[in-house]
Amino acid sequence: MGSVAFDAIETPFGKTDKIIGGAGTYIALAASFFENKQQIVSVVGEDFPQETLQMLKDRGVQLDGLQIKQGEKTFFWSGKYHNDMNSRDTLVTELNVLENFDPILPQSYQGAEFLMLGNLSPQVQKLVIERLETRPKLIAMDTMNFWMDIALEPLKETLKLIDLLIINDEEARQLSGEYSLVKASQVIRAMGPKYLIIKKGEHGALLFHEDKAFFAPALPLEEVFDPTGAGDTFAGGFMGYLSSADDISYDNMKRAIIAGSALASFCVEKFGTQRLQEITQTDIEKRINKFVELTDFSMVETIN
Amino acid sequence: MGSVAFDAIETPFGKTDKIIGGAGTYIALAASFFENKQQIVSVVGEDFPQETLQMLKDRGVQLDGLQIKQGEKTFFWSGKYHNDMNSRDTLVTELNVLENFDPILPQSYQGAEFLMLGNLSPQVQKLVIERLETRPKLIAMDTMNFWMDIALEPLKETLKLIDLLIINDEEARQLSGEYSLVKASQVIRAMGPKYLIIKKGEHGALLFHEDKAFFAPALPLEEVFDPTGAGDTFAGGFMGYLSSADDISYDNMKRAIIAGSALASFCVEKFGTQRLQEITQTDIEKRINKFVELTDFSMVETIN
Repeated sequence: MGSVAFDAIETPFGKTDKIIGGAGTYIALAASFFENKQQIVSVVGEDFPQETLQMLKDRGVQLDGLQIKQGEKTFFWSGKYHNDMNSRDTLVTELNVLENFDPILPQSYQGAEFLMLGNLSPQVQKLVIERLETRPKLIAMDTMNFWMDIALEPLKETLKLIDLLIINDEEARQLSGEYSLVKASQVIRAMGPKYLIIKKGEHGALLFHEDKAFFAPALPLEEVFDPTGAGDTFAGGFMGYLSSADDISYDNMKRAIIAGSALASFCVEKFGTQRLQEITQTDIEKRINKFVELTDFSMVETIN
Repeated sequence: MGSVAFDAIETPFGKTDKIIGGAGTYIALAASFFENKQQIVSVVGEDFPQETLQMLKDRGVQLDGLQIKQGEKTFFWSGKYHNDMNSRDTLVTELNVLENFDPILPQSYQGAEFLMLGNLSPQVQKLVIERLETRPKLIAMDTMNFWMDIALEPLKETLKLIDLLIINDEEARQLSGEYSLVKASQVIRAMGPKYLIIKKGEHGALLFHEDKAFFAPALPLEEVFDPTGAGDTFAGGFMGYLSSADDISYDNMKRAIIAGSALASFCVEKFGTQRLQEITQTDIEKRINKFVELTDFSMVETIN
């Protein structure tokens, strides 16, 4: 579940007209490299291009839960990245069809084993959970500081229902009130999710569970062309990998983080979803090997 | 070679009177866990405590090249860390004996195989290299933005003579004029050093060599009590580890980075050098194992 949207993006490298974006789009695209049976819950307006819907279908994404609202317009976001690419200003947000989004879960979606809740209001995220008759094996969700500011209590209610929260370091600090990510992870996991992934952008990602922590770096890149969607691509790749292996062990989550990180490293190479639509399984395998090389060491030497 | 000094430190957790500090002190202390034969080049005033010199001697640090200037005072630095511990203000800098530091390399130091040049003026760093009759197997150095601002040309001269530069991300960006650390590493290595380590504080460290990169995370800590000396401790642990194994291969450098990172993770747990003076070999081995756990994954699953 996540937004399927239009974005207009400006970076130091250039700017786009309205292009395809949205958390739901990135999640579905990324997951499709690992999992060929997925279902999207979202809403678009009548202005959304048929060819993009067909592209998703061709990648095995079922669209029965994607509402197309006649006479309405698709969600639109426009933003401009600063020179360091680590921060951005939102220029335009037009909620449009998202304003009154009531998620529909068709009967064909019942029994879904992996649920990824992209960043939307915690009330809508909760509705999706409630409308699934059987609880999925793993419920993961994303959120952002905006909801912590205006809907903290509903957010806390939804957090009680999920297994895994995927947020960035700034959001983890705001949600927990702790600067140390170790302490933040303890506070947040006490709110509900047994697993927590903290994304640190170019600095990688941390997975916390019980008394364990796993760290995956981001690949050092010559150029980040457009960071839009990297976090959602990470989440989609992560969930697709888990679902494909049908294994939610901690060890497999570590592998899934590497897979998600590899996909995110492609996402930022071009504007929007362009790069994700170009790459092949072989590209991904090669990229995953780069992560292995980047982190591989063996302490065979003994200390004096 | 590096400063042996007094520090006064203020953090959100407390403040100290004058305590023992200095890059040379941290480097020697950290290296002493791996290498029991090292020699320091530095200078102190007559106010420097004999017991600290004895402590260094007891750890195998030869002090023949440590000048004690009668009638003069030891270098003093005082700083205050901001709440996030990632930035600090310098409150006081009294160069004292460092103002006219002319490094002496006693005959007993000739033949040293590993040279670590702590952060001091590039002219002094160059003098030390020149005064060694035989070139060491590995010359590593640290520097800082201060020298890039006021002594860029001498710095570039010294960079031509070394094998490995160890600096932080901000310094790498300033020295190279590139924001991307991958690009920065290419520019900097074209200046001389074949190896480059970029320290990213709580985000770990990167090693670049030829077309290879290695990433080591920092251990996620509940609390950073005092970051002072962490970078020097990393460098000292790194060089001590390399020297002890007498192996400057890329693979051993990766191990040395983990060893240095482990020591740095202790350093920040208490004020100044206190924690480094308490820990044992067993503590270090356990900490290194935590790094192994933190980064360990195996992509045994195949992709669909």
